Amino acid sequence: MKRVSILGSTGSVGTQTLDVISRYPERFQIEALAAGNNAKLLIEQANRFRPKQVAVATRELAEQIASHMPSGTAVLHGPQGLIETASGNDADVVVTAIVGSQGLKPTLAAIEAGKQIGLANKETLVSAGHLVTAAAKRKGVKLLPVDSEHSALFQCLNGEPASALRKLMLTASGGSFRDRTRDELVGVTVKEALAHPNWSMGAKITIDSATMVNKGLEVIEAHWLFDVPYERIEVVIHPESIIHSFVEFEDRSMIAQMGLPDMRVPIQYALTYPERLVSPAESLDLTELGKLHFRKMDLERFPALRMAFECGKTGGTATTVYNAANEIAVSRFFAGDIAFLDIEQVIEEVLGRHQVIASPTLEQIDEIEEWARAAANNYGK
Amino acid sequence: MKRVSILGSTGSVGTQTLDVISRYPERFQIEALAAGNNAKLLIEQANRFRPKQVAVATRELAEQIASHMPSGTAVLHGPQGLIETASGNDADVVVTAIVGSQGLKPTLAAIEAGKQIGLANKETLVSAGHLVTAAAKRKGVKLLPVDSEHSALFQCLNGEPASALRKLMLTASGGSFRDRTRDELVGVTVKEALAHPNWSMGAKITIDSATMVNKGLEVIEAHWLFDVPYERIEVVIHPESIIHSFVEFEDRSMIAQMGLPDMRVPIQYALTYPERLVSPAESLDLTELGKLHFRKMDLERFPALRMAFECGKTGGTATTVYNAANEIAVSRFFAGDIAFLDIEQVIEEVLGRHQVIASPTLEQIDEIEEWARAAANNYGK
Repeated sequence: MKRVSILGSTGSVGTQTLDVISRYPERFQIEALAAGNNAKLLIEQANRFRPKQVAVATRELAEQIASHMPSGTAVLHGPQGLIETASGNDADVVVTAIVGSQGLKPTLAAIEAGKQIGLANKETLVSAGHLVTAAAKRKGVKLLPVDSEHSALFQCLNGEPASALRKLMLTASGGSFRDRTRDELVGVTVKEALAHPNWSMGAKITIDSATMVNKGLEVIEAHWLFDVPYERIEVVIHPESIIHSFVEFEDRSMIAQMGLPDMRVPIQYALTYPERLVSPAESLDLTELGKLHFRKMDLERFPALRMAFECGKTGGTATTVYNAANEIAVSRFFAGDIAFLDIEQVIEEVLGRHQVIASPTLEQIDEIEEWARAAANNYGK
Repeated sequence: MKRVSILGSTGSVGTQTLDVISRYPERFQIEALAAGNNAKLLIEQANRFRPKQVAVATRELAEQIASHMPSGTAVLHGPQGLIETASGNDADVVVTAIVGSQGLKPTLAAIEAGKQIGLANKETLVSAGHLVTAAAKRKGVKLLPVDSEHSALFQCLNGEPASALRKLMLTASGGSFRDRTRDELVGVTVKEALAHPNWSMGAKITIDSATMVNKGLEVIEAHWLFDVPYERIEVVIHPESIIHSFVEFEDRSMIAQMGLPDMRVPIQYALTYPERLVSPAESLDLTELGKLHFRKMDLERFPALRMAFECGKTGGTATTVYNAANEIAVSRFFAGDIAFLDIEQVIEEVLGRHQVIASPTLEQIDEIEEWARAAANNYGK
């Protein structure tokens, strides 16, 4: 029996994790669930899966849900609540499915507590890849990717010596605006940006797909997860999102992982690795699809991806700033405060004003993040 | 230093094996070379790689080349010469690159001598899969596939438990007549049939690609190599031959092996496994290609593939007869003796007259092969 804690249980990855777990009650048991503000869904989940702990964003919300909890479920809240659900229980695996840099500290706490990580919060590695991978190495903890691209790369690399690797190739659907020129992006609305061609995800990640920031974060994440230099990481546009990513080995043999887009496959693999069990996903029939398309990624068209590679190569706090500036820019776009194309402008301007710290401590990362958020908030004001 | 014996050194796979080996002189040494009738090329090869043994088809040819050999190279001939080069020396690996059922006995001899097999002669498994796999298991010998499809499957399965496998999917270019209807195949010439769209191979295998017999033999080979029932093996038409084959796991995750068509990649992998070294192949750029196509395999259009599945499911000597009848039919097509579409007719008729032996001995396989050849020779007479 594997005991699982889910950080972000009411979000897209969180609910799909619970879907996977509910199909194998003889294998998995929910130890803790942490949500943000979706009290209604968390109450449902808690009564179904009966975790020892739940956590919500605020004390107010915690008090509100307490009487709806099953007996034996402790209700926690705030950043400390997240850390408790990540590390203060008997979970074997912690799935980090919360969005944003708030995922960093609970993930580090889980690693310090020796728990295996199902890593869905990519900001953890983007903000503090050097600290997180060092802690995981020290504690002998596996970082099992949940993101479909990184799960694909992980599956492709399975059993192969690192010395054999030539390139990691991340595929990108191209996002909701893949067929528009930059000129055609002036004045696009939030609603237009949220219409992803291939699947429905959380709002922030959908915008990040349209700006290609999401792929930028994935490039940085891949660098840390697989210890591969940026020069060996490439991004290819693949509109169908059938090949989830692929690798090239020194002998020029390539291995690709494919399937119909269904997050439950990589989620389940992170939970059952190295085993593979029947998943709820449907089989891919390539002959029904008929064709797969591939296009070169254009870094002029998607400057946010160019910046991600640059920040990655610079290292240190550059990627922290890239991520934090983007988080604020996206929320300002949602608020109608800035235009879609301003998101990239915000990132570029904040990066331009940042003095990179090469190997920051957690405290320095906090400070730099706070600075970057403030700077992003001041853009255009 | 790995010592290698090559059976069929002057053919397409044989010469490419020598190309691979010549690039890593610090890793490989040629122990023995066996050829058929191409004395000129064998003499060149022997003087370059200085094997301890060479073998040719006939005593006459052996006497003819003896004086051109480097000192210390023994010259053998005939079926016994093949068996000697496969087993009577210090080779660590034997690459079985000869065409046809003549490959069976030397391969068995090599296995009995405890040598690893780089398996390119698919008839070995088609004629006597139960004997060959049992011997390999008993002697702890690895059968490393050299065929690009099987190498692809082997790479895709790398490190995965057999219980996780759902399907093996072999890709087929479709051969030289993939875009013709059956009506358009009436009266096609040998020259037309030899024009394969994607690469140049030996003549027999090119015809076998056009009839889809080659894919049929590969299906049977895959069954034995990977111990997978025929119900879990499928063939998909993929005209570009970029995905060399792929697998589906129980969780509906698929792993594919890809690359530009270059036999030196699977040949090298069979020689260096589990290592991967830089190969002479060029890198595949999917964005340059732009598209990959997939079509359903039509067993009405390609009855020889249907028969292969049927023979495989029947088991025993059915696949032996399928292969032997095809060998004679193809040689009769080359001789202008029968038409292209008659190849399938020969196989069907000979199969129809065969009483299957469920678990034949080597002697029974010999007898049945002889019978099938005679029957195929009598077709239409």
